Amino acid sequence: MSKKISIKDLKDYVGQEIQVSGWLYNKRSSGKLRFLILRDGSGYLQCVYFKGNVTPEVFELTDKIGQESSITVTGKVKEEPRSPGGYELDATEVTIIHETHDYPITPKEHGVEFLMDNRHLWLRSSRQVAIMKIRHRIVKAIRDFFDDRGFTLMDAPILTPAACEGTSTLFETEYFDLGKAYLTQSGQLYAEAGALALGKVYTFGPTFRAEKSKTRRHLTEFWMVEPEVAFSDLNDNMDLAEEFLEYIVQSVLKDRAEELKVLERDITKLQCVVRPLPRISYDEAVEILHKEGLPFEYGNDLGAADETVISSKFDKPVMVHRYPSEVKAFYMKRDPENPKLALAVDVLAPEGYGEIIGGSQREESLETLQERIKEHDLPMEAFEWYLDLRRFGSVPHSGFGLGLERTVAWICGLEHVRETIPFARMIYRNTP
Amino acid sequence: MSKKISIKDLKDYVGQEIQVSGWLYNKRSSGKLRFLILRDGSGYLQCVYFKGNVTPEVFELTDKIGQESSITVTGKVKEEPRSPGGYELDATEVTIIHETHDYPITPKEHGVEFLMDNRHLWLRSSRQVAIMKIRHRIVKAIRDFFDDRGFTLMDAPILTPAACEGTSTLFETEYFDLGKAYLTQSGQLYAEAGALALGKVYTFGPTFRAEKSKTRRHLTEFWMVEPEVAFSDLNDNMDLAEEFLEYIVQSVLKDRAEELKVLERDITKLQCVVRPLPRISYDEAVEILHKEGLPFEYGNDLGAADETVISSKFDKPVMVHRYPSEVKAFYMKRDPENPKLALAVDVLAPEGYGEIIGGSQREESLETLQERIKEHDLPMEAFEWYLDLRRFGSVPHSGFGLGLERTVAWICGLEHVRETIPFARMIYRNTP
Repeated sequence: MSKKISIKDLKDYVGQEIQVSGWLYNKRSSGKLRFLILRDGSGYLQCVYFKGNVTPEVFELTDKIGQESSITVTGKVKEEPRSPGGYELDATEVTIIHETHDYPITPKEHGVEFLMDNRHLWLRSSRQVAIMKIRHRIVKAIRDFFDDRGFTLMDAPILTPAACEGTSTLFETEYFDLGKAYLTQSGQLYAEAGALALGKVYTFGPTFRAEKSKTRRHLTEFWMVEPEVAFSDLNDNMDLAEEFLEYIVQSVLKDRAEELKVLERDITKLQCVVRPLPRISYDEAVEILHKEGLPFEYGNDLGAADETVISSKFDKPVMVHRYPSEVKAFYMKRDPENPKLALAVDVLAPEGYGEIIGGSQREESLETLQERIKEHDLPMEAFEWYLDLRRFGSVPHSGFGLGLERTVAWICGLEHVRETIPFARMIYRNTP
Repeated sequence: MSKKISIKDLKDYVGQEIQVSGWLYNKRSSGKLRFLILRDGSGYLQCVYFKGNVTPEVFELTDKIGQESSITVTGKVKEEPRSPGGYELDATEVTIIHETHDYPITPKEHGVEFLMDNRHLWLRSSRQVAIMKIRHRIVKAIRDFFDDRGFTLMDAPILTPAACEGTSTLFETEYFDLGKAYLTQSGQLYAEAGALALGKVYTFGPTFRAEKSKTRRHLTEFWMVEPEVAFSDLNDNMDLAEEFLEYIVQSVLKDRAEELKVLERDITKLQCVVRPLPRISYDEAVEILHKEGLPFEYGNDLGAADETVISSKFDKPVMVHRYPSEVKAFYMKRDPENPKLALAVDVLAPEGYGEIIGGSQREESLETLQERIKEHDLPMEAFEWYLDLRRFGSVPHSGFGLGLERTVAWICGLEHVRETIPFARMIYRNTP
């Protein structure tokens, strides 16, 4: 019997008879020729059936097989530069594992809601396969980056005890006899405990926002990676962020060129993502907005539209640092040179993809942090463990969070984050 | 000024004057000598202060610094085989970043509840640091294993729409206008959709059980990795599982020898985890129990005590396959040679650590699966998308789930899973 192989291994079997099992992705016919495009998850293979070379039964079968039928094909591997992947199969046989008819997703156009309802099938389309492979490569780049630099993974809990910043954007659940628990919005506070134990750590897991935002940038469930580093200030933090972004983008360019081509991504927009990235202060960002004639009020946070204008001035991600402390979180350290500013940094992706990183140097003084918690009207008791990090061996430290799905959307060049994750959760969708 | 370095890099600076910042882990004195043990997350460093070599102020300071104070030390690196790590510092200076007194966790014994209440600080202890580093190495081994073998990562959703197997062990939350959503117990059904799209996939994320189990093996929130492979039967699945376990254990042995030593782990128990792993049928497992004189009733599921007896007969993880279908999930394929059995496999860790893997070949027939759903009284509608995987291009496929925390407990040789994850969640604990 011929050897069973994966499509990605075809190159090692040129001239040999092999078998491949997979699904019928597409087909066409031309006179005495039938072309079946097989997919097996590792690639695509054009199988050519010539009437003179196969039995009448096999030839007839090639006409009858429906899209997405699972089949096994047999034939000889040929180099063929014009074929997808560079090889094709001089096919002699086909056997059906499971005959499929009326597959709902045809090569014609479908509405987005229909495709999202059939997400479990839509994932089989070549664009979705390409996105998932790029997502995977980005996840691997993220983990490799930190693993290679002495960071320890520190998984943060999903179920958290207190609604630290108000319950309005939190999912809550009953937790046995302990009252309510809340799905985490960020692992940062836990990562800070980790950094003081292990020096350099990162958390990487799902996080949740019960926000009623119905935009192309919002998911209710999304993955976030959050590095946190002891003995690190805002500048170190920005150095880390830019090295990190360069590493992610260059890893994808190197290993997922084919998938980027499927997505018709303009890779020149990615090739320029190399260090150094531009760094501008919030003040400079506001100047840009004012020069554009926008009625932006100094002191406000930057909105999505503002971010788009600012990022359009740069061909790389741009770091905006030192925001007014009032629009930023209580745990951010104030700038010693201007206490109205927080030592925060947001990184805005180019091409209007918005904020992909938010970070800061953290306040390390116990007394200052206690004041801030009071100012923000937060429940002091819930933060006692966090305050312990300033009671015992406090050190300067900083970190940031990168949203995975926005990063995938940017690198893939997608209109909407719903395609960046296998099964998207949005305010109006939690199926399939 | 002397160069700032990490403890792990000391070997490159022998004979040079350097600075290290970190926390005072421990100290002792002997006549004119003071020994400060510094930790920085990358290792431990003994700093030796000789009264004749330092200023009176520095010498006095070494006596006053409290445990877990954050400090910077300066001195010359010396090779010293008797020191932790093989190096020590001929120290000349120490500066305090944050002076700490009355650190709650002292070298004396503390109760577990006290330590868990102070988990954010307990993580700084050398045993906990060792566990976290081994956990990290296991996570990396898991991902590398699948990444190197052509699997695509397919993150499954945490928020799922239906209480498919009853609500009693599910955490639930309100989901906007869509009613209730439930925290996932397993990503498997989604992984199956992934396998039919991408051939070989894995999910790896947190999963949840609202079970009222108060044992040393149960967490309410734990991480699970679930590979799923198209065109794979039960035997392929067992081949994959044993290669996977060997890879994980051997990776830890190779790269985390020092941490295993800190934990006083008997590594001979790990060294023997190499292929092939023993495979016994459920019937053979029952025979073992009966030979031991246990009153086990054929047809029941194996309990924790039964698993301990069975695994004690082997020095490696043992695979128990072909369980009575009645004690196993509805989606498992029946054995064609005996339809009373499911093509399931559980892998039991040695030394009484219990089940670490559960898997099966999946039922691929639409009609059979529909019958099973009816037999189990499950809501057919919630499974329509899952049934689509059998309507369109169904193929034989199989997979398994490995619980991360039980695997960490086994490899580290820990009594209780609460130490295997940074912030454990149990029925009576969701803090800090």
